[in-house]
Amino acid sequence: MAGWQEALERQARTRAKAGLTRTLRPRAADDSVVDLAGNDYLGLAAHPEVIAAAAEALHRYGLGATGSRLVRGSTDAHTALETDLAGWLGAEQALVYSSGYLANLGAVRALAGPGTLLISDRYNHASLIDGCRSSGAEVVVAPHADPAALATILDAHPGRETVFVTESVFSVDGDLAPLAELHAVTSAHDTLLLVDDAHALGILGDSGAGGVAAAGLAGKPDVIVTATLSKSLGGAGGVVAGPAALIRHLIDTGRTFIYDTAPPPAVVAGVRAALRITRAADDRRAVLVARADQTVSRLTAAGFPVTAPAAGVLSVTAPGPEAALTWAEDCRDRGIAVGCFRPPSTPDGSSRLRLTLNAGIAAEDFDRALDVIVECAP
Amino acid sequence: MAGWQEALERQARTRAKAGLTRTLRPRAADDSVVDLAGNDYLGLAAHPEVIAAAAEALHRYGLGATGSRLVRGSTDAHTALETDLAGWLGAEQALVYSSGYLANLGAVRALAGPGTLLISDRYNHASLIDGCRSSGAEVVVAPHADPAALATILDAHPGRETVFVTESVFSVDGDLAPLAELHAVTSAHDTLLLVDDAHALGILGDSGAGGVAAAGLAGKPDVIVTATLSKSLGGAGGVVAGPAALIRHLIDTGRTFIYDTAPPPAVVAGVRAALRITRAADDRRAVLVARADQTVSRLTAAGFPVTAPAAGVLSVTAPGPEAALTWAEDCRDRGIAVGCFRPPSTPDGSSRLRLTLNAGIAAEDFDRALDVIVECAP
Repeated sequence: MAGWQEALERQARTRAKAGLTRTLRPRAADDSVVDLAGNDYLGLAAHPEVIAAAAEALHRYGLGATGSRLVRGSTDAHTALETDLAGWLGAEQALVYSSGYLANLGAVRALAGPGTLLISDRYNHASLIDGCRSSGAEVVVAPHADPAALATILDAHPGRETVFVTESVFSVDGDLAPLAELHAVTSAHDTLLLVDDAHALGILGDSGAGGVAAAGLAGKPDVIVTATLSKSLGGAGGVVAGPAALIRHLIDTGRTFIYDTAPPPAVVAGVRAALRITRAADDRRAVLVARADQTVSRLTAAGFPVTAPAAGVLSVTAPGPEAALTWAEDCRDRGIAVGCFRPPSTPDGSSRLRLTLNAGIAAEDFDRALDVIVECAP
Repeated sequence: MAGWQEALERQARTRAKAGLTRTLRPRAADDSVVDLAGNDYLGLAAHPEVIAAAAEALHRYGLGATGSRLVRGSTDAHTALETDLAGWLGAEQALVYSSGYLANLGAVRALAGPGTLLISDRYNHASLIDGCRSSGAEVVVAPHADPAALATILDAHPGRETVFVTESVFSVDGDLAPLAELHAVTSAHDTLLLVDDAHALGILGDSGAGGVAAAGLAGKPDVIVTATLSKSLGGAGGVVAGPAALIRHLIDTGRTFIYDTAPPPAVVAGVRAALRITRAADDRRAVLVARADQTVSRLTAAGFPVTAPAAGVLSVTAPGPEAALTWAEDCRDRGIAVGCFRPPSTPDGSSRLRLTLNAGIAAEDFDRALDVIVECAP
């Protein structure tokens, strides 16, 4: 074995000793596990109308888009989805990416250059952090969800071109950033607000238009929204939504847009069907709210520290990475999938179960899942 | 309009004056254009077996993977594709990503840290360049496809941990890096060789296993291969293939793997069907070779400077960005899609048509396409 492989093996052994080895556990199509780990919050990934729309586009367009968006990859299906997303989110325009990761890289880089001051919430997702790091801008990490701290940072950097980057619902703890208060600070300081709305889309706001919409910020000229199409919308890909000037800039100059193959037309068409269902899915959103209440009550009564979910994500602290892993494995052995987040996937270095709610699960299965989680606790 | 939007608008006007505005031109499903611009080299994106495999997985698994690979996103379909890719490429293991861009970011970062010297061919793709830039490593840009220059650079940095990054078939000019000679240099200098095989996969090598296989380097312990699943394989996504220790490292630590939603099972299943067809597609590869010869003969006879295609890509120099755009638009008006590459998409700052060959086009349509390209020349 070559020296570099030996070095990687040594690092792997160190991770193993710290309980940080990760294992892929492929699931079968007929897997009967009750899913409190995935992000299909509204239960639309297997909705018949979503499948039908994707299948139809698959047969009409073929599988791949066959090129980047600017060469052969743009189809009518992409345009239709972008029009619907912009309308739903209240943005002038929207641009679809093959992944949310690439959308975040693209959005941050478009807004920030070497002269910019980027301020990034300390619990932001890896894709936002990578966007900040690769932008060439000066980056200041801000205390989590803290408008007063943000104001202090901005006051300390007068006259700078500044962008504040945050999530709406945070992906591990499931808490909601105080977007209206944060925007009051950014707008008073002539600062752009970039919000990754991935975990709120479909759940918060009128018609599920997301956390930005719920905060009354949809369509504001100083607010840019990114999101994934792989969570409530049940598909894959990402989106940047904002003023037309930004979308024009991304089309002309955005590396992760220009140099990437377009998402498959079938995926885009399926997501568009999911969007149509989502807008009218107040029933499914009500189920999510009820399940959030039920979960917090059940786990709190059993003595576990649990975060209050702003949307569909909540987390339960575990004593350590190995205890978290054992807890999650015991649940899975009893037919319940829960997320297990350990460093470096957790913002604060702690380990926890992450539970994600799903309106598509039968009520009796959901009740049983909560029982199992409590019974398997370390 | 806010100040930042005005700044973006000013930049857009500057680009427009330089002829560098990019326009999305969505195509319809029944678009009858002859495609010499996409990357569906073997004509598999709409192959009935590919569509059938994707449709079956769509109905069995649903549309989205519903989570990252380490949470709920890994399915049997992902594992099956990874096993087949590793076998085909002659690598110990393979790991699939939702885009080739993310695969390249992940591979480069896994191999390079702050102490590494990364040497990058000057014509490398944006995703490789971004991987180098974001790795924190020192980056040296090497002359294009030049083993002697590479040796000189390595000689000047003795005792360093070094990685050389290159494409096999380059995406704009379509030329092939001298991989065997480059590997002789890297192995003599204890340097890793990372090859993006995106444009050679399916075309070069026995069973179309790519440029690395064609150079006799498949499975070498100091060679890592990345590729897209969106070109010859007709789908979407990317792959990293190499020693098991590297794949383990990517699963445990790779940010663009861990923090991204898994590719849709239907896409993965469709790509696997395309892989099966590709291995046996010597007939389609023979068509590509004949079409490359035909294209070079026709354009050379008409007096145009054209690169000799190593696989399915060739480029024709245009007098400038606006002339290139007009040429491509005139072709499209006559029903022929050709690529138009202008700065910053071209490595040397020139503008050109990029032609991509496709074994799925009817012979008479291909003949007509060449006629139109010649007739529309500026």
